[in-house]
Parts: sequence; structure tokens; C-alpha cells
Amino acid sequence: MKLAPIAFQGEPGAFSEEAARKLLGPNTPVLPCARFEDLFRSVKEGRAAGAVVPIENTLAGSVHENYDHLVNFKLPIVAETSVRIVHNLIVPKGVPFSRIKRVFSHPVALNQCLNFFARNPRIERIPFYDTAGSVKMITQEGLADAGAIASSVAAEIYGARILRRSIEDDRQNFTRFFLLRKPEYARRHPIRAGARAAWKTSLVFSTRNVPGALFRALSAFALRDLNLTKIESRPLRGKPWEYLFYLDFLGRVDAPSAQNALDHLRELADFLRVLGCYPKGA
Amino acid sequence: MKLAPIAFQGEPGAFSEEAARKLLGPNTPVLPCARFEDLFRSVKEGRAAGAVVPIENTLAGSVHENYDHLVNFKLPIVAETSVRIVHNLIVPKGVPFSRIKRVFSHPVALNQCLNFFARNPRIERIPFYDTAGSVKMITQEGLADAGAIASSVAAEIYGARILRRSIEDDRQNFTRFFLLRKPEYARRHPIRAGARAAWKTSLVFSTRNVPGALFRALSAFALRDLNLTKIESRPLRGKPWEYLFYLDFLGRVDAPSAQNALDHLRELADFLRVLGCYPKGA
Repeated sequence: MKLAPIAFQGEPGAFSEEAARKLLGPNTPVLPCARFEDLFRSVKEGRAAGAVVPIENTLAGSVHENYDHLVNFKLPIVAETSVRIVHNLIVPKGVPFSRIKRVFSHPVALNQCLNFFARNPRIERIPFYDTAGSVKMITQEGLADAGAIASSVAAEIYGARILRRSIEDDRQNFTRFFLLRKPEYARRHPIRAGARAAWKTSLVFSTRNVPGALFRALSAFALRDLNLTKIESRPLRGKPWEYLFYLDFLGRVDAPSAQNALDHLRELADFLRVLGCYPKGA
Repeated sequence: MKLAPIAFQGEPGAFSEEAARKLLGPNTPVLPCARFEDLFRSVKEGRAAGAVVPIENTLAGSVHENYDHLVNFKLPIVAETSVRIVHNLIVPKGVPFSRIKRVFSHPVALNQCLNFFARNPRIERIPFYDTAGSVKMITQEGLADAGAIASSVAAEIYGARILRRSIEDDRQNFTRFFLLRKPEYARRHPIRAGARAAWKTSLVFSTRNVPGALFRALSAFALRDLNLTKIESRPLRGKPWEYLFYLDFLGRVDAPSAQNALDHLRELADFLRVLGCYPKGA
């Protein structure tokens, strides 16, 4: 039987693929998708066994679109990992640095290599839909005056050459990814982790629009010494200037203190849903 | 003497221009800019007397890039307003609906008219850098098979025709804008508002990375009955998985309770800066 693949966004060689292999092993079958929404849809419709989605980057911030999909598609988070983002200048074989007039990549990647472009003002930045996809394009088209910014894996896959390694401005560049499964799969395959493993729980809630509402919502965690690691707000559709809050805390959702915190939050919140409980990534 | 203009992002007819005229009057001289960063730079360098920047939309969420610029450029917020976003299908004069094969607009605008595209599957969506700019382009190029999505003002300016009015999926579509000035200007021109006007204060802070830090930071406001209207988190550069928090509360920054709250927050925060205090928009 062929294993159902794990969906990721981008072309082969994307950082998301690296995250998928880090989470599930180097031989995991994968399914490249064009858009984030396709990842969620492919799992929902059974074309993929799971999806690896980027949720935040330490420089660019949250991938807000994926927060919205998390609440809409109701796919539980079963694992997280983070990947160090190393950007390389990649060219079709035989193209020397002196010939490069333009460099293609995803806008976020271009924005993370501003020092490189400041040092080389003759090189134009050209936004492309994907980092690995830009390597694929310049090699397939055999562009003699173009480079791309992407992972070293992308260079390998498309038989291209790395001209400059690690051209990102800031080495503190990490992207955090979630592994999502179908609810049925998550129920049938409870997550195992060592007895001493740390856990995280992710949830989403909205508060009534009253003074102090967010403060009181956070008290449900603070009063039980549950440590928040992330809070993100997104607009609530249909209620202008009201928000959904996405929150991660350290702890298992089935621990008594977490259950008490959720009961407490339920009293205060208009809406509350647990998005997943998973071992904390390294 | 010629008045220095107010900078906005986009082409003439952009929603940002509408916000500028709403804030400063219909005859305000304006300066269209290509990128958000240019707005901040033009004020900093004295080419503009102020800038109108979009900060959040009730459907798409915060304009995170502008939050980052707010803290980097240190231009005080002196006013806010919000604009109802009405998207219209616009064509060069003489182009009938049946001929339209593709529609250009800013990706956010295309995404806010999904029902229109679902009803008209033969029409392709093509992302463009600006809403008003897409009207300018289709009319200047005289495209006979293309439309654009933009404001009615954009249709007027470029002599184009509105074929379908208000094709946005959700009428609860508003964008909030800030008016920014130079610090010197803000000092010389204190904001006047009626005695009964409501005020807002915006600030940015980071907490020490300790359990309960955000809860304690919010207590500075909750314990003084100061009502928060918005909280936004952004990554803190150089400290992976730590955050800057942007917060708006109702009240004047010089009111005793606000001063006490800020003193309290200063005890808890690693970094704190007030971004502005301005009359609450309608």
C-alpha cells in the first residue's frame, strides 16, 4: 500500500518540505501544493495524510492566513518544529556572479537579504511565488543573468549552483511549523512522548466586548501559573474592531491545572476551541 | 507658499487618499508613494508634512509592516479615522461585462470579492500592486478584456466606468488609518478636540520573558479601569520567540490614571514607548 503523502506549500526544496522531513523522517512521501488553503483542503478531503504549515517566523512574524485556516478547517495540531532559515544565492550552472542582473525569490526571503542587495545595487530584486520555485524557474529557463534565493536543498534538487551561502541579514531566522492531521487520525493515534517531555497547548477564543475582558481571560492561565508562549489577534468577521485571540501555553491540555484554566476561560469567553496539544519542539 | 503635501500609499483614488481627505479636508495637497516605507521616509525627510497609513482592516487584519515602521521611524500618531471599503468592478469605457476575461487589483481587494469570482468563474483574478493603480493601468493600456477592482473615486479620476457597484463579500469592511507627523510638528501643534471627545493612546512595549509577564502588563490598565481596544504582537528582532506588543487604550495619555498605568507598566517592561494620543475616530 502506498502511504498517503504529507502536504506542504511550495515546490520541492521549500523550507516547509524540510520541516516535514524533520517531523516525519527523510523518506516521508510529500505533496507540494500551490497555496496554503490547498494544504488544509488536501487533508480535509483525504488526498494527504497530514499537512505541514508555517505559523510564524522570528523576523517576519505570524503567517496570519494560516491562523484563519486553523479555525476554519478544524484540523488538530499534533506536532510542531522549527527550521533555521538559511538563504543562499543560487544560479544555473555556469553563470558567474558578475553576470547576475536580477534575483528571484519569495518577497519574504528577498526582504531578509537586504544587506546583500545594498552591497550589490546593480542586482534587481524580483518577487516570485516561492523560494524553491524560483530556483526551478531560473534553471529550467536557463536564465544567464539571473539568480534565486532559496535553501541549499533546492539548489541540489534542480542541479543549480550555490554562489553565496547564508546571505540572510539576521541569523536568528527561524520558522515554526505545525503538523496538522484529520481529527479521526489524531483520535486513533494519540501522541507519545517521553515522560519528561514538555507539552504545548494551542487554543483560540473570543471575549465579550467589555472592559478588561482580555486581562480576565489571561488571568485563567496566570492564576494557575500556566506560562503563555504566544498570543496572536485576528479580526472577528462580522464584528468590526473585535478580535479572535490565538494563544499557546506550556502544558498538557488534560492536566488538572489546564482543565481548570479552560473551564475558567469558558466562563469568560464567547467562543473557545482547543486547536491541539503536542510536544514542545526543540 | 505651497503647502507641504500629505503622503499616502498607492495611486490617486486609493482608499488611503480618501482617508487623508477625510482627516484633513478635500483640498489637502497629497503625495502618492509606491511603498509603505516611503510614507515614513517622506515625513522623516521633510518631503511631506504628514502621512496617512493604513493600520488595520476589519477583514484582513493588521497591516503588520506599518506596526514595524511605527516603532522604527518614531513618528507620532496625531489622529485616526476609518474608511468604509467599497469595491467596484471598473472597466475602460466601452467594455461590456461579457468581454471581461481578467480582473486586476490589489490581492487583499481580490480576496474580499470571492463571491463575485465564484459567480463568474470565467473571470481570472490577477494580483496588481494597487487598487487605484489597476484602474489607471487598464484605462491607459486600453485593455478591451480587462476590469479592475477599486473605489468609485478611482473610476472618476481615470475616466473609467463602474460596471458593478459594491461587489465586496462583506459590508463590514473598514480600514483604520493613522495620521503621522514629525515629532516637532506634533509638539508645536497640540491636538484640539471638544471637551467631551473620547481619546485613544497607542503604545508599544516588550516584557521580560517570564511567566505571567503579559498578564501583569495588562494589569497596569485593568486595575485602573482603562479599556483596551487593540493588542497586536510582533516578533522582537534578535530574540527568537519573544515579542513586541502594540496596545491601544481609551483615554488621554496625560490623565492621572493613564500616567499611573504607564508608570506601573514601566516597572514591568523591558521597553516602553508611547506612539501617540489622539481623538478617537468616529
